[in-house]
Amino acid sequence: MPTLSADEMIQKATAIFSAAGATDREAQVVAGLLVDSNLLGHDSHGIIRVPQYVSGLEQGKIKAGAETVIDTETAATAVVNGNWGFGHVTAIDAMEIAIQKAREASIGVVTVHNCHHVGRLGAYPPLAAEEGFVGLVTNNGHGADKALAPWGGVGRILPANCFAAAYPSNKDWPVAVDMTVAVAAGGKMRVAAARGEKVLMGAVVDADGHPSDDPEQYTSKGGALVPFGGNVGHKGSALAIAIDILSGALSPAGCTQANPPATGNALFIQVINIEAFQPLDTFKAEVGRFVDYVKATPTAEGFDEVLIPGERSHRTKADRLINGIPVEDQTWDQIETLADRLL
Amino acid sequence: MPTLSADEMIQKATAIFSAAGATDREAQVVAGLLVDSNLLGHDSHGIIRVPQYVSGLEQGKIKAGAETVIDTETAATAVVNGNWGFGHVTAIDAMEIAIQKAREASIGVVTVHNCHHVGRLGAYPPLAAEEGFVGLVTNNGHGADKALAPWGGVGRILPANCFAAAYPSNKDWPVAVDMTVAVAAGGKMRVAAARGEKVLMGAVVDADGHPSDDPEQYTSKGGALVPFGGNVGHKGSALAIAIDILSGALSPAGCTQANPPATGNALFIQVINIEAFQPLDTFKAEVGRFVDYVKATPTAEGFDEVLIPGERSHRTKADRLINGIPVEDQTWDQIETLADRLL
Repeated sequence: MPTLSADEMIQKATAIFSAAGATDREAQVVAGLLVDSNLLGHDSHGIIRVPQYVSGLEQGKIKAGAETVIDTETAATAVVNGNWGFGHVTAIDAMEIAIQKAREASIGVVTVHNCHHVGRLGAYPPLAAEEGFVGLVTNNGHGADKALAPWGGVGRILPANCFAAAYPSNKDWPVAVDMTVAVAAGGKMRVAAARGEKVLMGAVVDADGHPSDDPEQYTSKGGALVPFGGNVGHKGSALAIAIDILSGALSPAGCTQANPPATGNALFIQVINIEAFQPLDTFKAEVGRFVDYVKATPTAEGFDEVLIPGERSHRTKADRLINGIPVEDQTWDQIETLADRLL
Repeated sequence: MPTLSADEMIQKATAIFSAAGATDREAQVVAGLLVDSNLLGHDSHGIIRVPQYVSGLEQGKIKAGAETVIDTETAATAVVNGNWGFGHVTAIDAMEIAIQKAREASIGVVTVHNCHHVGRLGAYPPLAAEEGFVGLVTNNGHGADKALAPWGGVGRILPANCFAAAYPSNKDWPVAVDMTVAVAAGGKMRVAAARGEKVLMGAVVDADGHPSDDPEQYTSKGGALVPFGGNVGHKGSALAIAIDILSGALSPAGCTQANPPATGNALFIQVINIEAFQPLDTFKAEVGRFVDYVKATPTAEGFDEVLIPGERSHRTKADRLINGIPVEDQTWDQIETLADRLL
């Protein structure tokens, strides 16, 4: 398993995307976000995805050079059309529009459609937090990406919709939440299935709705992901529904449907100008105090520490920036093969 | 167990609150919201609370006649001070401010402090939905109300923070989510403890952090509530933290702390003017279509139907409006005793 520097990985991925037809900006943005996922320890959303996006370009599903367009707007809102360019680029454009609106109108709410998969949703709220704003993002599958059985039901009906948020603090990292409403994401099932590993019992159900620890029940046997919540999985299911409406029905993309015309991500993006409510330094200090307060909790058996959302990723990034990023042989081989073909 | 009409219950509760010193509006608003909780089947937040609020008035903790004041505002935002009046009234005032802002500026975001307990959080988003807006509300305990052990920790560190949302639809009810981040709310533990009943295994932990089905571990033995999520309870815990910051740090109330000066609810209220994104009729029809789509899911073993958030409450209300509200003897006795003393 090679250990590579972030710069090396970004350079390689950028070159591949450029050779596959992406604009310079697209290649740089997508490569940077993928490698940032690796740095933060979310390898399932890292450069392992390069072949998928090259394939998307080559098949014409991802439109290189597509422009992000504002369909309609008010001082505080916009509906943004990604024109099926790279979802990552559309999401960054939309987040920048939301930040600008929050700067001028205190709040910016932007919904997004015609948007390819944006990758790791947690990539975007920190862009707001870095500039001193609160960032909140939700997504659905643009009507598609059905993976999850609703509480009380059987089959793939809803996507594993996600919620991500970031808050600036006086630490050197934001409090950053990024979660799917499923017990675990579909990508984790694919990784476990490829490795022949089991998953958490009940993270999937088979085609009849029975709990299972076999990821292939999801990947190839007609089963589904399960809303998180354990015995109160109706809560995860309710979140899936609440997020689907917020993300889909406030944009032309729509909520999840039986026969979706396209797949991607519809987004709900919100940026809050903290200064409209509290002085930014006061807010940051309060978040920092709260972090310290929660971290001072006596630990339960089997835990060394109470972790705050975003804390582990921050540590992993600090480590990987110095010591490099371990990349599985198979992943790097695929990238080298793409490089040989395209460069 | 008497079965009473909503009108009868509202009349009685209104008279009691008035006699205890509430203004006419306060008495009517609070009585109306409590009985609405009963109508919707959420009896733990219904008129069982009348003695608690009378006691709050008599002890001077709830300031009758307090004015809801806007501390600071922009076109789309406000920080609202409840001056420790009835939390229900403060919340309704703040929601009305948010609706008015959404009407004029497309989005209204209002944070609230110096606010007593607002009761059932799910009462407020439907006020926005009724007027054709999306309503979202979160709360913390105004720095206090510590009840929940964070993931990996032991002890009461965080409140059982809540999230509530409502979306208008073309049905005769809104899709309405109202959930605590705990497996179950503290009020349910108190009811179960009073009845000598067990609760869901793992809904509480004892003082050492071991899972229990004994509600007294929470009510009297130093244990804590547990974030929902089952084996992925870090997700419920992350929601608790995300909600605490949103509710507390954007208002002067602050996040949860070791030695809180007061107890109540700090609120984050958001209202979205749907027309800034989609024609209202289009949005309502899409939500209705989505509801039908999810409800068409084949049911899992042990389920007769896939329910949508808000659906069961809607049915209970329709039934109770016709057939009356069953009230436990003990609850009605307490109210009759209060009536005898005060009226």
